[in-house]
Amino acid sequence: MNITSSEIFQTLEDIRTKSPLVHNITNYVVMNNTANALLAVGASPVMIHAEEETADMAALASALVINIGTLSEPWVRGMFKAFCAAEEKGVPVIIDPVGAGATPYRTRTVRKLISSGRPTIIRGNASEILALTDDTFKTKGVDSTAASNEALIIAQGMAADKKCVVCISGEVDYIVDGEQMIKIANGHPMMSRVTGLGCTASALCGAFAAVEKEPLKAAAKAMAVMGIAGELAAERSQGPGSLQMHLLDILYRLSETSIREKLKIA
Amino acid sequence: MNITSSEIFQTLEDIRTKSPLVHNITNYVVMNNTANALLAVGASPVMIHAEEETADMAALASALVINIGTLSEPWVRGMFKAFCAAEEKGVPVIIDPVGAGATPYRTRTVRKLISSGRPTIIRGNASEILALTDDTFKTKGVDSTAASNEALIIAQGMAADKKCVVCISGEVDYIVDGEQMIKIANGHPMMSRVTGLGCTASALCGAFAAVEKEPLKAAAKAMAVMGIAGELAAERSQGPGSLQMHLLDILYRLSETSIREKLKIA
Amino acid sequence: MNITSSEIFQTLEDIRTKSPLVHNITNYVVMNNTANALLAVGASPVMIHAEEETADMAALASALVINIGTLSEPWVRGMFKAFCAAEEKGVPVIIDPVGAGATPYRTRTVRKLISSGRPTIIRGNASEILALTDDTFKTKGVDSTAASNEALIIAQGMAADKKCVVCISGEVDYIVDGEQMIKIANGHPMMSRVTGLGCTASALCGAFAAVEKEPLKAAAKAMAVMGIAGELAAERSQGPGSLQMHLLDILYRLSETSIREKLKIA
Repeated sequence: MNITSSEIFQTLEDIRTKSPLVHNITNYVVMNNTANALLAVGASPVMIHAEEETADMAALASALVINIGTLSEPWVRGMFKAFCAAEEKGVPVIIDPVGAGATPYRTRTVRKLISSGRPTIIRGNASEILALTDDTFKTKGVDSTAASNEALIIAQGMAADKKCVVCISGEVDYIVDGEQMIKIANGHPMMSRVTGLGCTASALCGAFAAVEKEPLKAAAKAMAVMGIAGELAAERSQGPGSLQMHLLDILYRLSETSIREKLKIA
Repeated sequence: MNITSSEIFQTLEDIRTKSPLVHNITNYVVMNNTANALLAVGASPVMIHAEEETADMAALASALVINIGTLSEPWVRGMFKAFCAAEEKGVPVIIDPVGAGATPYRTRTVRKLISSGRPTIIRGNASEILALTDDTFKTKGVDSTAASNEALIIAQGMAADKKCVVCISGEVDYIVDGEQMIKIANGHPMMSRVTGLGCTASALCGAFAAVEKEPLKAAAKAMAVMGIAGELAAERSQGPGSLQMHLLDILYRLSETSIREKLKIA
Repeated sequence: MNITSSEIFQTLEDIRTKSPLVHNITNYVVMNNTANALLAVGASPVMIHAEEETADMAALASALVINIGTLSEPWVRGMFKAFCAAEEKGVPVIIDPVGAGATPYRTRTVRKLISSGRPTIIRGNASEILALTDDTFKTKGVDSTAASNEALIIAQGMAADKKCVVCISGEVDYIVDGEQMIKIANGHPMMSRVTGLGCTASALCGAFAAVEKEPLKAAAKAMAVMGIAGELAAERSQGPGSLQMHLLDILYRLSETSIREKLKIA
């Protein structure tokens, strides 16, 4: 499958015009940056996590983004309630399994969350995606290429099984559903020196899924915009501090020309 | 009522000299920016929320700012205890009803909080202020001008009833007590693309109320400084990322000349 | 004792090469900046606080940083479990007693935490260090010089007693163990107008302790890098907003030449 720069820009313009409400239950580290990135692309972020109100909020939102970065039991209860309410209302749900595999608690929680409903998009790096499955789709991985191949096999299996989109982000982003794949090769190495840009990418998946009804395209467009904005920001930056600032400025002003010049479908 | 640029600058200088301790119980999204804005104007911010210590801290502070942005039950308990301790000691209390009206939990909690004591200043946007009242002061609003008029009526009624100051922020900020009104027309549209600048404005109300004993003037001066600094920052910025950075730099250096040149009393 | 600029740079290069995992249980205000500063120097930060997983995470880390800035009971439970697991595995533990002395809850909690194990490095300002002891090492302090002398006496007593390193940060940073002392005189006054740079210094102590096995040197090198980067950032800045951005850029690019030119051993 393919996406064009003009399609990407059109969806970005839709976000700017419609300003969709994106409900985020995310981690403490990135809340500010996530909210700012959503505002910069034109969306309306809301950050609400308490179990007393997540269902009410998710039901009103145009997308729900659940990120387990700094999880704890009260937040997990809020995540389950939001997920359930979003599904009932047909609100697209993006799950970011931050740090899955790092501790048993984290791995167990995100697996239970994913199995409790049908996410629209799951976005993580290769090791996080690898940790999502209890050996069902697992092959043996020995080096990092094998690990990445293995993550792709798991992603495709999980996407087919859950009828959702899985995005493995990395030097090349692989976005798959049960049948198709889009590969985006944008981004810059310095982006890994700014905390939470993966979380920002997931939040942008939410904004794009709110206005683009094909989840595969929504995820691919979000990853393309994130990668292109990151490249443009890195070119203007002397380090990760200025990269973070320029990234927001560029998301705010991103033009069709910039997308056309930079887009790298792999 | 009126305020002059030299009065505003004098209060800013008082903050810079006295460095008042401002206790914030605020949301996760904006804590860093709020603390930085308070430091930039010369105040001493402290962020403490646990019910085990909010009363002790609030009693020592020169102002208490309660912001319900990412509320949950443990934090709400901390807010009530802080509010009570601050009132007992005569410490000015600023309440920011973030997202009031968005969910029943949020609306119910902030109404209960406000009715539990006498805030010094309540600052929110029109829809948040509208959500604070259980129809007592409500008229019918059909379009946004009417909604804004309605918010003003509610603000005036609540200010008279609670003997406090209510500030409705927006393109024009309306600051009212039971009898008087100040209107500030500073600010820049790009400020709405940076998360939490309303929360920053409330925090500045805390810093100003710590040194300016007339709450109406304290709120108006804080809103003027926030709006002027935002305009100056936007003029230097290519987007919301750089706006946020410049805003802190400008708050740190804001001169009487800049205030005089920019101040727009509506 | 002494440290040289080339030794400092060598340890910085070790961090850049080995990218040690630094587990932070820190406060909401600074999480983003702390993570970014650790990434900028080349470390791999992880922020995890839930008692269900802090022991698992701390056991895998190359350093653990515990910062009590916005403490509450659930977090305190996570801190104790992490501390215990880190000690068992020989992972260096840095404690930042933010705001010790400000409320009884805070003072009590951090004293209990420190007495529950053996920290590798404790870093705080003079008043925080003064609050750590229950009069055991206390002398009478009347003015700020005396207070600072008193903090030094307490720091040395505590360092000897706990066989750990204590760093009192300020205009001059005093880094002591039971026998030796290193004094670093780097830094810039504008740094105190950016929130959480003390917390960042503690996090850097974690990154340095992960690769430099002498805790006294690790703490001194971290404080030197922090102070030098702060000076270089302040020179390029118009206020605390740009200082924060430049600081991350400079930590990312800091060269041996810059360290040599700026290092001030007092």
